[in-house]
Amino acid sequence: MNYPNGKKNKQGKQKSPQSNQKYSNRGMTLEEDINTTNSYYLDIGKANIHKKPTPVQIVKVNYPKRSAAVITEGYFKQASTTDYNGIYRHKYVDFEAKETKNKTLFPLANIHDHQVRHMESIIHHGGICFLIIRFASFDETYFMDATLLFPYWYEKVNGGKKSIPYKTIKQKGYLIPFQYQARVDYLTIIDKLYF
Amino acid sequence: MNYPNGKKNKQGKQKSPQSNQKYSNRGMTLEEDINTTNSYYLDIGKANIHKKPTPVQIVKVNYPKRSAAVITEGYFKQASTTDYNGIYRHKYVDFEAKETKNKTLFPLANIHDHQVRHMESIIHHGGICFLIIRFASFDETYFMDATLLFPYWYEKVNGGKKSIPYKTIKQKGYLIPFQYQARVDYLTIIDKLYF
Repeated sequence: MNYPNGKKNKQGKQKSPQSNQKYSNRGMTLEEDINTTNSYYLDIGKANIHKKPTPVQIVKVNYPKRSAAVITEGYFKQASTTDYNGIYRHKYVDFEAKETKNKTLFPLANIHDHQVRHMESIIHHGGICFLIIRFASFDETYFMDATLLFPYWYEKVNGGKKSIPYKTIKQKGYLIPFQYQARVDYLTIIDKLYF
Repeated sequence: MNYPNGKKNKQGKQKSPQSNQKYSNRGMTLEEDINTTNSYYLDIGKANIHKKPTPVQIVKVNYPKRSAAVITEGYFKQASTTDYNGIYRHKYVDFEAKETKNKTLFPLANIHDHQVRHMESIIHHGGICFLIIRFASFDETYFMDATLLFPYWYEKVNGGKKSIPYKTIKQKGYLIPFQYQARVDYLTIIDKLYF
C-alpha cells in the first residue's frame, strides 16, 4: 500500500538476529521496527507507548446487511500531533519517526509546523519529546531531543537552510541500539538522558 | 454520519452560556464537548490532550491525477486503547468517555477487555487513568477513576452483574463542572484528586 507521504509499506522480510547493527534492519521500515519495539515493551510491562491511528476523514459509509460497515469514501488528513505517545516510568513520552535515504542531511520537508508547535507544547508541559531519525543508507537510527530540532526549524521558517546535517545528528543525537525484540531500543537512551 | 457503535453524530446546536448545569449541554454529544474542552485547554496552554483518530483498516486507495488520494474501501477497527490521552502538569493522562441514556446504571457492554487491560497498564506505569461517564437523561457528567471500574469489570467477567449502578457513580465519582469554554472541565477534578 502507498501512503500519502509517498512511502511504500514494504512487506518486510525479517532477518535472523545479528549482532551487527549496521545490517540488522534491512527490509523492515522504521515504522515496523518501532511498532515491534513498542509491542515488546508493552508485553514485558516496560512501557505503554502506541502509534496513533492514521487520521482519516470519513465521508461515505455503507452498511451492508449482516456484514461490517464499509467506508467507501475517505481521505487522509494531516496529523495535528506527532505519531507516537505513551507513558514510561511515570513520564509522558511523545515522538515523531522519520526515515531518509539522504546521506548527508535530514530534510525538514516532512515535518509540519503544527507538529513543531505540538513538540514545543509537550516540552512546556514537562514531557519527554524527541525524534527518531533513520538514515536508511547507513542503517543508523538516531534519537534526537526535540529541542535540538527547534533552532533548525526556525532557520528554515526564516528562509534559511531546510535541513539538519547528518554530522550534527551524529554528534548531538544518540545512536539507538538494535536488539532483536526491541529493534529500535530507544528507552535505553531515555534511561540515560532523563533519569 | 453513523458510527459503528450505533451513535449518531448530531449536529449540535450550541446554546448560550448558562449557569444551570443541568441544561447546559443539550444538543452536544459528550465527544463534541470533550473536544471543545481539549481545544480550549490547548489554546490557553493548560494541557495537551487529544482524541486519537478512529482506527481504520485501509484496504483500497485510488490516486486520481491532480487530486487527493481517495480511500475507496476501509473498515472500522476496534481500538486497542482508550480514546483520549495527553499531558497535564507533567503527568500522563488517559481516559475513555461514554454516554448512556440509562437512568439507573452504566452498562459495561461498551467497554472492551483490551481497554481495561490498557487502563491497568497505565496505572501500573504511574499515569492518571479514568472514565468520563455522562448520564444523558440527567445531563450529568462524572469523573470516575479507573480503579473504581476494575472490581465491577471482574464481576462481569466472572458472570456477575454487567453494570455499575448510577448511585455508586454519583457517590464515588465526581460531578464534572460545566464551563462555557471548558464544557467538561475535568482538569478541575484532576487538580483536586492528584495534586
